Formats: sequence, C-alpha cells, structure tokens
Amino acid sequence: MNLVLLGFGNIGQGFARTLLRKMKFLSKRYGLTPRIIAAVDVDGAVVDESGLDIEKLLETAEEKGTVAEYPRKGEKGRSGVEVIRNIKADVVFELTPTNIEDGEPGLTHIKEAITAGRDVITSNKGPLVVAFRELNEMAANFGVEFRYSASVGGAIPIIGLVRDQLAGDEVYSIQGVLNGTTNYILTRMAMEGAPFDVVLREAQELEIAEKDPTLDVEGIDTACKVTVLANALLDWDSRLDDVDITGIRRVGPDVTRLAQETKNTVKLVGVANSEKLEVSPRLVPIGHPLDVRGTLNAITLETDLAREISISGFGAGPQETSSALLGDMIEIYRSKGD
Amino acid sequence: MNLVLLGFGNIGQGFARTLLRKMKFLSKRYGLTPRIIAAVDVDGAVVDESGLDIEKLLETAEEKGTVAEYPRKGEKGRSGVEVIRNIKADVVFELTPTNIEDGEPGLTHIKEAITAGRDVITSNKGPLVVAFRELNEMAANFGVEFRYSASVGGAIPIIGLVRDQLAGDEVYSIQGVLNGTTNYILTRMAMEGAPFDVVLREAQELEIAEKDPTLDVEGIDTACKVTVLANALLDWDSRLDDVDITGIRRVGPDVTRLAQETKNTVKLVGVANSEKLEVSPRLVPIGHPLDVRGTLNAITLETDLAREISISGFGAGPQETSSALLGDMIEIYRSKGD
Repeated sequence: MNLVLLGFGNIGQGFARTLLRKMKFLSKRYGLTPRIIAAVDVDGAVVDESGLDIEKLLETAEEKGTVAEYPRKGEKGRSGVEVIRNIKADVVFELTPTNIEDGEPGLTHIKEAITAGRDVITSNKGPLVVAFRELNEMAANFGVEFRYSASVGGAIPIIGLVRDQLAGDEVYSIQGVLNGTTNYILTRMAMEGAPFDVVLREAQELEIAEKDPTLDVEGIDTACKVTVLANALLDWDSRLDDVDITGIRRVGPDVTRLAQETKNTVKLVGVANSEKLEVSPRLVPIGHPLDVRGTLNAITLETDLAREISISGFGAGPQETSSALLGDMIEIYRSKGD
Repeated sequence: MNLVLLGFGNIGQGFARTLLRKMKFLSKRYGLTPRIIAAVDVDGAVVDESGLDIEKLLETAEEKGTVAEYPRKGEKGRSGVEVIRNIKADVVFELTPTNIEDGEPGLTHIKEAITAGRDVITSNKGPLVVAFRELNEMAANFGVEFRYSASVGGAIPIIGLVRDQLAGDEVYSIQGVLNGTTNYILTRMAMEGAPFDVVLREAQELEIAEKDPTLDVEGIDTACKVTVLANALLDWDSRLDDVDITGIRRVGPDVTRLAQETKNTVKLVGVANSEKLEVSPRLVPIGHPLDVRGTLNAITLETDLAREISISGFGAGPQETSSALLGDMIEIYRSKGD
C-alpha cells in the first residue's frame, strides 16, 4: 500500500514513527506492507516510488527541519498539489495544520487527491468545518474512501464506532469533553481553587496550552469537533459558524467552588443534537462519564437502542492520533486490498 | 435478508420487536429488508419462507408461550437443527439461553448453521466459553461470518471496536465491570451501607437479580465474558475453567465503608491480560472510568497506541442487546449484500 503524506509536523512524524514501529505487526496480522512513497511539508517534498527510508525521513525532518533536505531525493519548493497529481498513491494522508478560516491548504489537497482517484485519510479539521458535505459527495462521486477518524477525539474512535458497531442505532444527541487543554485547566482549577490565569500560565509552561491559547480556551477547537460530529453522525450540513460558542475565560474560582459544593464539576462541553450545536462551560455531576480529568476527552451518545454509551480516552498526541489514522488505513486496506 | 431465529425468549422477542420498529430505518438507510423466515423455541417452530408476520409472532409467543402456536403454520416439536438443515437462511441468530456446562443447545445450533453455510450471529456465551476457537475455525473454513458482539457487554460494542476502529492497536489488557446485577448490588451497598443479603433481596424483588443469583454473585457470568474477551481480543484459547474466580458474597459493609474512606469503591472486576484471567472484587478509585453506577457496565482497554480507552453503557436488556445484534447484521449485509 503506497502512501503520500502531506504535512510532516507533529502528527505526520508521529504517524511515520508509528508505521516504523508497527511494520511487523501490520504484515503479520493483515498482510499489509505500507510504503511512504512521498512526504511533503511547507518547504518542499521528497518522492521515492519504491518507498522512502522512514528512519532517514524522520531524521531529516528532525535535524534539518524539512523533508526537502532528504539526501539526494529531497526537492525544495515542490508542492503538495504537484505531488498528488504526479505520484500514484493508494492513500493520501492530509496531515497539515487546521485552518478554520478557509480550510487551506488541506481543502485543496483533499479535493486534488479525490479528483485523482486516491483514497484520503485526514486528521485536519479545517476542511471538515468549511466543506464537509462537498468533500463527502466528491468522494462518493469519484468512488474513493474519505476517512477522518483522527480529526475528533484523537484516539477515541467515535466516528467509526457509530458508523460500524452502532449501525442499527439512531443517534439522538452527542455531548463531549473534546479539548484536552481546557479540560486540564478546569481540572487544575477545581483541584487547587486557583484562578484561570494562573492555571493557564502553568499549562503554557508545561506546553499543554499554546502561547496563543485562543482556539482552545475560547471553545473554537471544541466547536470544530462539534461541527464534524454533527455532520458525520447527525446528518447536519453545518459549518463552524453554526455553533453557539462560549469559552472558559469567565469561569472563576467562585464557579468551580460552587460546583464542588453541589457535587458537580465544571467542564467545557460540546453539544450536538437535532436542534442545536453548542459549546459552553457546564456543570457535570461528579462521577458522570463526562467527568474525566486532566487532558482526557470523553463523549456520551444518546441513541434509540443502546440508550447511552460513553467513551473516553486521550484526545490528542501524535501517537494516540496514529491509532485513528492506522485504524482508518487498515479498514481501507481490508475493503479494497493492497 | 432472510433470518432464522433460534430461541424466542427475552432476547429473541426483544430483537423481533426491534426489527419491527426499525424496518423503515433499515430500508431507508441501508436498503436492507430483513425477513424472519423461521423462529424456533423449546416447544417447536414456525416457518414461512416468504416472511413471518412479526407482530403475530410476538403476540403468539406472549399469549401462547411458544411460537409453535403461530396460527396454521406453527409446528410443535419441530427442532432447531431440523430447521437449520432445511430452511435456506442468510443469517442464523442463535439466541437460546447460556449453558456454561456444555454450551448446548447453542453449540450444536451454531455448528449446524456453519456447516450449512449460513452466517451466524449469537448472544449466547455458552458455546463461546466451551468452543471459541473451534467455532471460529469452522466459520473460517466454511467461509461464513460468525459474530458475537451481543455476548459481552450488551450494548457496549467492545469487540467490534477493537477489531475495526482499533485495528492498528495491540491490546495489552482488558478490565471490566461486566455484570449489571452485581454492580447494582455493590452500588446499593456503598450508598446505603446495607449488608449483601439485604441488598440482594431488594434486587431480587426488582427482578434485577434472579431467584437463583449464583451465576451473577459468584462471578461466573463475569468470568464467561472475560473468557470471550480474552479469546476474541487477546488471542487466548481459553475456556471458563481457565478463569480464577472470586464472587462478591463476602463483600461486607465494613469493606465498602473502608473503600469509601479511602476514596475508592468496590467493583466486581474481570481482568484479562497476557498472563492471567481473573474475576474478583477490587478497589476502584472514585471517578475512575470503571466507577459506573447501578446496572451499568464499563470496560477499560490498555493498548500500545491509544494507551487507555474506556467505554461504558448498558450491559444487558433485550433492547440494548438488539443494538449489538443489529450492528452485527448490518455489517454482514454491508460486506455481502442482501
């Protein structure tokens, strides 16, 4: 199975590292031999249709900062679109960073890959919050697979779970703690009675929060995930704008204390049902499945048959996200062969 | 898609009721039209290859106590084996009660169905704890599907989750609260400080515990589920005898009180890893994903990539179990067509 990787940052490198580590496992259990035949980042590309040396690829990215410095074969300035058009891949992985404004460059990458007849797997929420239905319809028209398990909940396989195991259920509502950074902040605030700013600074020092924490603390990242879940699992045709968003900046020690006194805890909860898409800080009873601590994520589904199912796990991290990317890849392989 | 139902008690009737309710949904979403062409219980059978009237079938079972009284077509004394051999079904549902001694009559039903080239779906743990590998090898040899999602965790789709969404992960260990009756009893004991016998009687009055509660409170039902999970997800070739079992009869109010004082709770936990299969009362920290209340079930997986994933939901009940049976059926339909 020949793979093209677009984006070779945290997620791309994490996935390459996972492939390296799981080569034997994939061959033994599934008879599957993945080869990375091209990798692209902002500075350029490297292509080898007989398969790149993954160790060398990782070394190059770490030491030189770009795959374009790959010995002899690296090419500065070669673009993702150009690689998609000219390299015959089985699966294109779109792993560039999320851009919530226009979804680029992921959106163009995915469209080009679908048009070229490639199956596509992405971790990128950007294209999914601006053109979800369009991309899915394109994929159906071109007869290719389009998978995005890694875009929501990292290692929590919520989308496949509903599509496959809960295929007979109708999902009424989805509630989720979908952002590890804000959950870490709220957990620490509750444990220490400390104010938001102090805990945010601590989280930034630990690199759990980014220098500009806006996307996380304002609830925008959670809203992206709500959009994807609503589109994928509830047949919404929504964009990020459709979500009513309140972040956690105004959650003070008084609120977390009051919550504790009533045996509750404050969580940033994303909600999607047939009526609304919403992100806001909510009281969750202590011991409720959404009461997960630290950077964990959790999702509770309400359905007609199973009634209530909850799933929790690590919502981010390159290795955890690889679990979802690999799961998607194996499912495509199983349905289509090498 | 033509279905034969072997066993028409709680689970069989619950599944028939669900089919009735979901007919439109299945047709609209998947283009799938299931027909029950035969139903069998201990007293006899009813066969109609053009499709039985499901409402009439449910009425007959409720009012007369057996499908063999189905107007005109019911046949007393006609056996499951005879029906399997003579009726051309697409899928045989084995839904008779669990027999942990020799797996019968389920074991023979499943073998006959596989030999006749039918796909098989079961909720019955009996055959799975006495002949798991044999049945799976038979199914592979005859090129038929053999699915048993409903046998563990009711509506919690743990087996498919690992097989499909976590296909790239290696599972290191499974821990689960897998029996709703004992979890109800332990939850009430913790909440009320009441002794085991009192709470057991209360549970029996509410029909949460059976008159003879041995299988539940002695941990045998949990051990059956541990056996199935170990075989299905950890490549064990185990039988019920391989599980080291301690039930909850000796858990007294002193133990539950001590647990609470240390911010723990007592749960009957099933454990499977590469070293051991075990069922015993264990301390679980309050707030841990296995700390689910009442009749809920929960399972925590440790894997190499996702690290830790937990899932909780309703572990029993005819409607909830139908979620798993229907999920298995739709997956077979998707892979093979009508």
